[in-house]
Amino acid sequence: MRVAVLSGGVGGARFVQGLLDAVEPSGVTVIANVGDDLEVYGLHVSPDVDTLLYTLGGEADLERGWGRRDETWRARETATELGAETWFQLGDRDLGLHLARREALDRGEPFSAITERFARRLGIEARILPATNDRLRTWIATGDGELSFQEWFVLHRHEPEVQGVRFEGAETATAAPGVLEAIAEADLIAIGPSNPFVSIGPILAVGEIRAAIHTRQVPSVAVSPLIGGKAVKGPADRMLRNLAGGTGPEQVASCYKGLIDALVYDEADGDVPLPDGVRPIVSSTLMTDAASRRRVADAALEAAAALR
Amino acid sequence: MRVAVLSGGVGGARFVQGLLDAVEPSGVTVIANVGDDLEVYGLHVSPDVDTLLYTLGGEADLERGWGRRDETWRARETATELGAETWFQLGDRDLGLHLARREALDRGEPFSAITERFARRLGIEARILPATNDRLRTWIATGDGELSFQEWFVLHRHEPEVQGVRFEGAETATAAPGVLEAIAEADLIAIGPSNPFVSIGPILAVGEIRAAIHTRQVPSVAVSPLIGGKAVKGPADRMLRNLAGGTGPEQVASCYKGLIDALVYDEADGDVPLPDGVRPIVSSTLMTDAASRRRVADAALEAAAALR
Repeated sequence: MRVAVLSGGVGGARFVQGLLDAVEPSGVTVIANVGDDLEVYGLHVSPDVDTLLYTLGGEADLERGWGRRDETWRARETATELGAETWFQLGDRDLGLHLARREALDRGEPFSAITERFARRLGIEARILPATNDRLRTWIATGDGELSFQEWFVLHRHEPEVQGVRFEGAETATAAPGVLEAIAEADLIAIGPSNPFVSIGPILAVGEIRAAIHTRQVPSVAVSPLIGGKAVKGPADRMLRNLAGGTGPEQVASCYKGLIDALVYDEADGDVPLPDGVRPIVSSTLMTDAASRRRVADAALEAAAALR
Repeated sequence: MRVAVLSGGVGGARFVQGLLDAVEPSGVTVIANVGDDLEVYGLHVSPDVDTLLYTLGGEADLERGWGRRDETWRARETATELGAETWFQLGDRDLGLHLARREALDRGEPFSAITERFARRLGIEARILPATNDRLRTWIATGDGELSFQEWFVLHRHEPEVQGVRFEGAETATAAPGVLEAIAEADLIAIGPSNPFVSIGPILAVGEIRAAIHTRQVPSVAVSPLIGGKAVKGPADRMLRNLAGGTGPEQVASCYKGLIDALVYDEADGDVPLPDGVRPIVSSTLMTDAASRRRVADAALEAAAALR
């Protein structure tokens, strides 16, 4: 069973954890969002790739919800004392990964190859690939002007209402090596319970990836990130309300027009008809432990089996 | 009393400590070697500037002899686990300074302004300036070819015998803002007990600085880094033997031809005539505590007074 999963950060990573319990891990390729990436102190930070690496490698800080477990903040404390901007927080262990990535990028190793190498070092059996090795950046249009994703998300705590989303570099970005092959060889294409606009949107903004999913020969199943119309974490509900006209499963499905055959969503969202013949799969989608993560993965796998 | 001091790392910093006990600190400008500088993980590391900042700011690790006290190595451990080259060791707190420096350089703040700002934050009353804001790099010619200074010094533990020294960028480098003014306004020019070839050499390789000292109107006094023909630390003795034909005060003085009026050296080096009318000042020059550091500074100050 080969699965290609599109994923943002925390929610997507949890879904992938469930999937890795349900299928042979070596058959899973995670295609990760890089629209959130940023340069901090000359280091290349890729929050969703990093969250996937840390979560699947058993290194995530589950309580804080981002970064590495068993973290310290000595470099940041010193940088702050010396007057540096430190709103984007990097712990000491997290910094270690970013130093290693910088060194590898400077040596000319592609971002995707570095990510695969780090995943192996962290003992991860699934393959993690950035959607693209090219520069692709998410910009958020707000009433106060356009902000880079991390300025909006972290510095402004995703408070400014979102009027639109733009993916800088998407026109020319090509899929990272392995991404199109993983989609072509997959028995199932899955879209994790990540924010459709700013987590999955940047992946689908890469024309080759969107086209490969659009012309698929296998089932494609998305998992809604909303439960009872609310985001488990983050601004997905507000963005859906502003940009898709509502927070129901039908609005989530509308974000993936032509790209999915079924949508797994929570029982709290009721029984609603979905557009374009997308099959509704109602389940319990809150992922708080291994059993609930596995349940969501199974719902997606069963939906795919029924579609075959 | 205004003093302009040319300095490398540890030995020079100790001499400056003594000087700051002896004269009004705000009158002291330290002109630091940047030939050792290197880029690690995209960060600008300036070992001699950093040693001066840490030593004068009370942050140096005195036992290890480099880096910050109360240091941890979590970022480095992680980078090593992920396969990065980590032979150039950066502790977590040290990294904090380098992150802050990278951010400031990226904002366009000159290296010299950043250094002055960090010195103030560290509570240092003397002024610390890099010799130049331009790229100036020391290369070491060895039997196995040319090595960058840090490759030779750290990676190869300064074992390959030195056949020559080259200062890349010296032809076009100009003095950092404040350096020529500090020399012009000084009542005393001092050259710290640093390696004449690779610590003081790169400073004097900046034509404007060499010329300003050459045409001085005030006394210039150097302190020898050797005691009984031996370096307290590092390869200065071997370099003097190879490149200046011996390890006596006369060879040290010959490195500063036309640039000094007196040389302070240790009583273990005997009573020798110095070339070019340079006045020998015999003292005890081992600096192990505040009293011995002060003694060396006083020797230099008294030599200057006698020359006036």
